[in-house]
Amino acid sequence: MSRSLLLVGTGLVGGSFALAARAEGLFERVLGVDASSAAIREALAHGVIDAEAPPRPEGVAGVCVAVPVAAIAEMVRYAAAVAPGVPVFDVGSVKKPVLDALEPHTPATFVPCHPIAGSERQGAAAADGAMFRGARVVLTPTEETDPEAFATVQRWWQAVGAETVTEDAAVHDDLLAVTSHVPHLLAFALTRLAADAGALGHIGGGFRDFTRIAGADADVWSQILGANAPAVSRRLDEFSERLAELANATRNDPQALRSAIAEASRVRRGLDADR
Amino acid sequence: MSRSLLLVGTGLVGGSFALAARAEGLFERVLGVDASSAAIREALAHGVIDAEAPPRPEGVAGVCVAVPVAAIAEMVRYAAAVAPGVPVFDVGSVKKPVLDALEPHTPATFVPCHPIAGSERQGAAAADGAMFRGARVVLTPTEETDPEAFATVQRWWQAVGAETVTEDAAVHDDLLAVTSHVPHLLAFALTRLAADAGALGHIGGGFRDFTRIAGADADVWSQILGANAPAVSRRLDEFSERLAELANATRNDPQALRSAIAEASRVRRGLDADR
Repeated sequence: MSRSLLLVGTGLVGGSFALAARAEGLFERVLGVDASSAAIREALAHGVIDAEAPPRPEGVAGVCVAVPVAAIAEMVRYAAAVAPGVPVFDVGSVKKPVLDALEPHTPATFVPCHPIAGSERQGAAAADGAMFRGARVVLTPTEETDPEAFATVQRWWQAVGAETVTEDAAVHDDLLAVTSHVPHLLAFALTRLAADAGALGHIGGGFRDFTRIAGADADVWSQILGANAPAVSRRLDEFSERLAELANATRNDPQALRSAIAEASRVRRGLDADR
Repeated sequence: MSRSLLLVGTGLVGGSFALAARAEGLFERVLGVDASSAAIREALAHGVIDAEAPPRPEGVAGVCVAVPVAAIAEMVRYAAAVAPGVPVFDVGSVKKPVLDALEPHTPATFVPCHPIAGSERQGAAAADGAMFRGARVVLTPTEETDPEAFATVQRWWQAVGAETVTEDAAVHDDLLAVTSHVPHLLAFALTRLAADAGALGHIGGGFRDFTRIAGADADVWSQILGANAPAVSRRLDEFSERLAELANATRNDPQALRSAIAEASRVRRGLDADR
């Protein structure tokens, strides 16, 4: 009986993990589950999965749950039921609400994960086996998480080239609000303002880069933002305060404006130097 | 006597025009002027200019003023004095304040221009002769602008591959507030928030793209934002209203949030389809 990965959600991120994991020899086969039969066909056509999973898949050695946030808890329960004792992990951008939804019967084999990777593209056709190389993957186990399952999942991520860090789920959600969720809201708002202002003819590379994340999927992102609404609101308030300071400096204090820009520029250039 | 371009400000954008214009045979030589002798040496070393301009340059057939916004008016006056009757154009991101600063003695040979191109990189070393290929260049002539100078400068931009459009200076400044100046403020504010939140370890490609413009030069950008402060403030207020709506939907109205994201995503994806 072959050693299989059960991939629940055959989209971009899950598909990329499947490609990478099979290339590294972590699994011999990939069995796919998806609510959309078109997604299953796409994943089969691009060699991301070997077959659609039967109702009772056999030989499952790991389960990757790569579905939109609102469906993760239900799919984790499904995975723990069809593959008891086997490590199960998700790839969602929000962790605490998923854990809360699983309480009080969180499967010990569930290891909550968030690979900070991906793109605004979608679907198995865009899956990329190199997606996690050099990426950070945050694992947010609880006291109930089985240490063996945790160690196995951590090893899988490292095998596909990721750097793993372990963190409290709420801390993760707060930091991601800053680096991902709030920026998405800003990009959505700016894209719509530019369209309504009739300004889309006057864009260069800066606008394209800034708004690239606005091309994201509406279902996926409305669920992420809704699930992390408290942290997003808090960080958005902080952001708005800082923006108001910058706006005030723009009108009244050239030196303060220059200093603030110089500081931001120094930080941002440092990120490129780090690579 | 060779037909020369006088390049006032030997940085990224001016240097890119010089490379492109010479490659297209618009000028035989490029003479450079810069407040920084290091910038002159860099431009010479990278073949962007042929020589530093003497105090009274001869054979000048065109002047490109590519200096930070606050210095443009003074350099346009200098250009009109050393090269009387010759077309002079600038490349600034803000147009109306430059025209206001030149009133009531605006040289008729001055053609206000803004190539919507560039990058967060700086200096002649990063100059790129292909920078304007496919880029939009906005020309904002006034009633006093000499039609012949206008036609010549427009032809130069088209020769280096740009699409030219003619627009009122205040309209240009308003639209650029939306597509460039406000996004820079947002990127500056978010970069600083992420640094202060200790979140820079948790970033992916989305954050990098979104904040790329935050690596901009502090002098250049504090001047642009300061010069266009009224339009920037107005558009920033509109932006903040839309952001507040999205934030409210994030907390209270999943359907409205989903619709807003879907609309932004449709617009943004349309920009890539247009390319």
